[in-house]
Amino acid sequence: MAARTALEPAALRSPARIPLRSAAETDAGQGARTGRIPLFDPSPRVPHGHPAKAFTGEVVPFSIVCFREGHDRIGVHLRLKDPAGAETLHRLSALEDGSDRWRTEIAIDRTGEWQYRFEGFADDFATWAHAAAVKAEANVDIEVMCALGETLLTSAAAEKDRPATERTLLRAAAKRLRPAGAAALTAVATDDAVADAFTARPIASLGSSTPWLTLAVDRRLAGVGAWYEFFPRSEGAVRRKDGTIKSGTFTTAAKRLPGVAGMGFDVLYLVPIHPIGTTNRKGRNNTLVTEPGDPGSPYAIGSADGGHDAIHPELGTEKDFRAFVRAAQKQGLEVALDLALQASPDHPWVTEHPEWFTTLPDGTIAYAENPPKKYQDIYPLNFDNDPAGISAEMLRVVMHWVGLGVKIFRVDNPHTKPLRFWEWLIAEVNAADPDVIFLAEAFTRPAVMRALAAVGFQQSYSYFTWRNTKAELEEFLGSVSHETSDYMRPNLFVNTHDILTEYLQFGGRAAYRIRACIAATAAPVWGVYAGYELIENVARPGSEENIDNEKYEFKFRDWDGAEERGESLAPLLRRLNEIRRAHPALQQLRNISFHWSDDDSVLVYSKHLDAAFTGTGAADTIIVVANLDPHSVRETTVHLDTRIWGVEPGETFEVEDLLTGAVWTWTDHDYVRLDAFAEPVHILKVKERS
Amino acid sequence: MAARTALEPAALRSPARIPLRSAAETDAGQGARTGRIPLFDPSPRVPHGHPAKAFTGEVVPFSIVCFREGHDRIGVHLRLKDPAGAETLHRLSALEDGSDRWRTEIAIDRTGEWQYRFEGFADDFATWAHAAAVKAEANVDIEVMCALGETLLTSAAAEKDRPATERTLLRAAAKRLRPAGAAALTAVATDDAVADAFTARPIASLGSSTPWLTLAVDRRLAGVGAWYEFFPRSEGAVRRKDGTIKSGTFTTAAKRLPGVAGMGFDVLYLVPIHPIGTTNRKGRNNTLVTEPGDPGSPYAIGSADGGHDAIHPELGTEKDFRAFVRAAQKQGLEVALDLALQASPDHPWVTEHPEWFTTLPDGTIAYAENPPKKYQDIYPLNFDNDPAGISAEMLRVVMHWVGLGVKIFRVDNPHTKPLRFWEWLIAEVNAADPDVIFLAEAFTRPAVMRALAAVGFQQSYSYFTWRNTKAELEEFLGSVSHETSDYMRPNLFVNTHDILTEYLQFGGRAAYRIRACIAATAAPVWGVYAGYELIENVARPGSEENIDNEKYEFKFRDWDGAEERGESLAPLLRRLNEIRRAHPALQQLRNISFHWSDDDSVLVYSKHLDAAFTGTGAADTIIVVANLDPHSVRETTVHLDTRIWGVEPGETFEVEDLLTGAVWTWTDHDYVRLDAFAEPVHILKVKERS
Repeated sequence: MAARTALEPAALRSPARIPLRSAAETDAGQGARTGRIPLFDPSPRVPHGHPAKAFTGEVVPFSIVCFREGHDRIGVHLRLKDPAGAETLHRLSALEDGSDRWRTEIAIDRTGEWQYRFEGFADDFATWAHAAAVKAEANVDIEVMCALGETLLTSAAAEKDRPATERTLLRAAAKRLRPAGAAALTAVATDDAVADAFTARPIASLGSSTPWLTLAVDRRLAGVGAWYEFFPRSEGAVRRKDGTIKSGTFTTAAKRLPGVAGMGFDVLYLVPIHPIGTTNRKGRNNTLVTEPGDPGSPYAIGSADGGHDAIHPELGTEKDFRAFVRAAQKQGLEVALDLALQASPDHPWVTEHPEWFTTLPDGTIAYAENPPKKYQDIYPLNFDNDPAGISAEMLRVVMHWVGLGVKIFRVDNPHTKPLRFWEWLIAEVNAADPDVIFLAEAFTRPAVMRALAAVGFQQSYSYFTWRNTKAELEEFLGSVSHETSDYMRPNLFVNTHDILTEYLQFGGRAAYRIRACIAATAAPVWGVYAGYELIENVARPGSEENIDNEKYEFKFRDWDGAEERGESLAPLLRRLNEIRRAHPALQQLRNISFHWSDDDSVLVYSKHLDAAFTGTGAADTIIVVANLDPHSVRETTVHLDTRIWGVEPGETFEVEDLLTGAVWTWTDHDYVRLDAFAEPVHILKVKERS
Repeated sequence: MAARTALEPAALRSPARIPLRSAAETDAGQGARTGRIPLFDPSPRVPHGHPAKAFTGEVVPFSIVCFREGHDRIGVHLRLKDPAGAETLHRLSALEDGSDRWRTEIAIDRTGEWQYRFEGFADDFATWAHAAAVKAEANVDIEVMCALGETLLTSAAAEKDRPATERTLLRAAAKRLRPAGAAALTAVATDDAVADAFTARPIASLGSSTPWLTLAVDRRLAGVGAWYEFFPRSEGAVRRKDGTIKSGTFTTAAKRLPGVAGMGFDVLYLVPIHPIGTTNRKGRNNTLVTEPGDPGSPYAIGSADGGHDAIHPELGTEKDFRAFVRAAQKQGLEVALDLALQASPDHPWVTEHPEWFTTLPDGTIAYAENPPKKYQDIYPLNFDNDPAGISAEMLRVVMHWVGLGVKIFRVDNPHTKPLRFWEWLIAEVNAADPDVIFLAEAFTRPAVMRALAAVGFQQSYSYFTWRNTKAELEEFLGSVSHETSDYMRPNLFVNTHDILTEYLQFGGRAAYRIRACIAATAAPVWGVYAGYELIENVARPGSEENIDNEKYEFKFRDWDGAEERGESLAPLLRRLNEIRRAHPALQQLRNISFHWSDDDSVLVYSKHLDAAFTGTGAADTIIVVANLDPHSVRETTVHLDTRIWGVEPGETFEVEDLLTGAVWTWTDHDYVRLDAFAEPVHILKVKERS
């Protein structure tokens, strides 16, 4: 079976066998757009006509507005078709909040294109049962209601596709209505077994349906994962006696794999590994002049040694790269490459395909610029001179790396290339290999970031690094978890090689701890750029990036020594990834709820997953309480909506701090003390009551 | 010309002649949904695939999200096609708020189906001019930028469809770039005349467009009007000496027309005028037993005298009705009829078309009911037994009255009939006569109310009567003016024959004044049910409707006496309708803004219309400050965003109270004193500064 549903009656547990009666339009032909039973605003929403997204294991809420005129009862079905074409049928529940919205949740467990549609129908038995119960109580219309019920039950009992036991049950129920009587009417109208039979196989009339909609389901790593970024050239680089530096290689970098895997990361993202241009190469700290031995920015791609399909000779050979990818796999790490579609002036494209760049009237090729700023080590591509040729080449480059076992690409500055190019490229690559995942480095305006996600990117960097206050985080996390979660998946990187926020610069060790705890628990995908463990928090003055940026030089880091000295955050990162793996509630994007605290620096949220979806038979609930002030101790009271995890207000429950092991008895109002210099964050597991 | 635009440069004043260059997809064929210049989320929105709505004279905001990759400049056009097929082109302005949304406003001046689409394009001259100005300032790339500019200007000067003067201008500008120089580059790049030429006729490359969208434009009365409801049988009813009552007639009711017209109303809505059934007729105060002479509810339609196409004999003949409609027209009043699609047991349909009702197993026809409540004087129609037959009959009934000069229908309980029936009926009627307006009495859940508007109703009753606090009114008025204004037009009735809210029951005369002032100014359509002037505020105990409800009896009212004694609110209603007519800002739905006051009972809003749209050459701004507490005097400070009407914070401006004539000098922070027992509301006109 392809899907599990929550909140469904037993009879729907094997929904594939349930026929929908009269679901097609029964009264079409009047030229109206609206069906006999109106259906509006289906969710997941399909952004701008593109498919909605999910990942395997994701619990997806399906909902729609459905109503009919007057007081008669309706039912709403979701019909799901998995990528193999197998159909299942799921009954939705009314939200009962005046919104006329009906909803269910399904755990999606298979990659590929799913189809879904909603079907609304008049539920003739429910209409009768409601009226019959009320009228029996008032002792009016007994004769008529019994006659109506007998007709309904008898006709349902004659349906060939009902199980024999059910047909017997319904036939017997019909008989109980003769002779007519208020007691018999009440009994049949409120009989649970009869109701169950009709919930599973309703007498559905006047059906309408939406068109089929598409849900593109990616593999699990598109939706759940912990990322680690490093520069392979730094890992194993050696400073020679003469002061020059020997670059790290894939072979030396492979020695760092156990360390990264040991922290529990899933994806290892490498900045570009291609040959680096020498023309106008940038020096340390982004200076225009290089000194001998400066390795250059890996984003200035291409030299006489090759372009986007080549490997920097100092890193090794294609064979070395393959070995590195295999070694990573053995450690449980999947390698992600950077896809930075731009060229150094020395890239082979420049001579072979000058039409892929912009040539100025003086015959030179235009540098990248944001006037008056110039980036003279980079030629941007011009996608309009030869769209077909340039598209084919980019597809070739991506498929080259796919051929070498790379299934994840972190795309540099996608918002500087045409949106439709990405839509096309991602579709082409995924048609060849649906497992390929693209992460958009879309640090740009909201409409652009969302559009990149809508047209196909499986993941997006987000504004997370710049959301540091409680109000900012509540707004941001609420938005990515609810508003845009049908198509955009944020990857909560805590830092990048380009971003060192003021919060991290000035918040000390506490800031690093706080941000890691939030990123790891608030969304199912998070990321760390190497050096975060070591609290590398000195910025180039006046900037929001590290001084001595690794983009322009080699970095030497003493991972083991720092950990031995107790200076490293590696143990925290390791614990956070352990907690993530152990708690299915943390592996979902849409299930966050915010709670009140009396302190504006104390953020409180919970992530909850119903027992139906955890795979353990028990619900999973995590409560995170974070002191966002990295400079002080905060004592306050938190106020929880405990009903989310099935605890009535005022009742007690046990929580265990997964970072410290402390256990407390909590209720819906609780005192907390969070010390920035000791334990600034609680990550609490709600313990099952015995 | 079919449309006026605001905020547009002079060159766009006659946009019909402006060609769009390369607006079609230039790089289609890659299978992507996104155009080369992405366009998303057009507004007006088309709800559920139905046309968006406007009315003649409405100033409609058109907007769309549009961006391109990188830093190059884009332009966005709106292409409008009026119902006759005449096209105009309008340049949009970027909102500059990070939303990537572009916007313009157009005053729509013609009824019928308009088409609109948005076109995004690379604006090659703007891209050059921006880079040229920046580089000239920095004195870099002068030679190249001059050469690029010369090419652009020369090619534009050669375009045959540019006016000769413009071609001369551009040719001269090209020459100024030879020899190249920073001063010449700055001069050409920042030349207003050159910029104007390119704003009007851009060098547009890489164009993309949305599909054509539909805007259904109704006549003005669909969007702007003051409604008055009465029971014609009460107007001129006479109590005989023996205590029996002689019904009013169309002839006697016509005597009330000058009074209604004199108060400035536009629409006179009559409750059903058809024969009333006698079977199970309801008595006074909705009792099940009638006394001799009880006239019955006009909603129990149909008797031996006829059904929905007949006139109650006591009101007069069809000829009398025609005369009444003509007399109303002479007074500037348009007559609206009630369309209540249900039947009394005595309706001719019951015998001629029993299949249009629900027959029970005992052979009887089902009464209306909401179990266990029964409405035994009413048979509801069953739209599913013979949808084609019943639809045809309803269309015949409506067109019968259209033939007698009725172009407005107030539809009773539309949410108890199939939504698709209304979609079909309204489309059919409007195809025959686009001037017919349907008002939905949709006092139901939000999704249903909105769906009725989306599928075709030109106006809707709303939740206005139940929104009485400041927070409620801000939320409600903001929602109907902005969220749903593309398809739903609220008619702010202050009371109806079914609704007498607690606020009116217990708020005395002040409550009646306050609610009338808000309803008349906050939205362009409002309504009053006869008796409001007389503060008829006694409810049937435990209900939200008048005691001795006019639905079940005749009402005798002394309009002139009450006014002479100074007891009537007629002078206030008259003044409110005068103010509405004099102020175009009050004739728009979407232009409301809320302002702060320090008192939670003092509501502040403004309605503003730019000078381009008022027809007077001057902007029109009304500020309403209402004390919502009908029991006390409130003194507080209001805080205004005066920039809406072009006054900088801190500057002073004059306001005139249109109710009292008082004049004050105001700034953005002002003291107000509003006495519930004297003048609870300011309706202030912002005076033009000399």
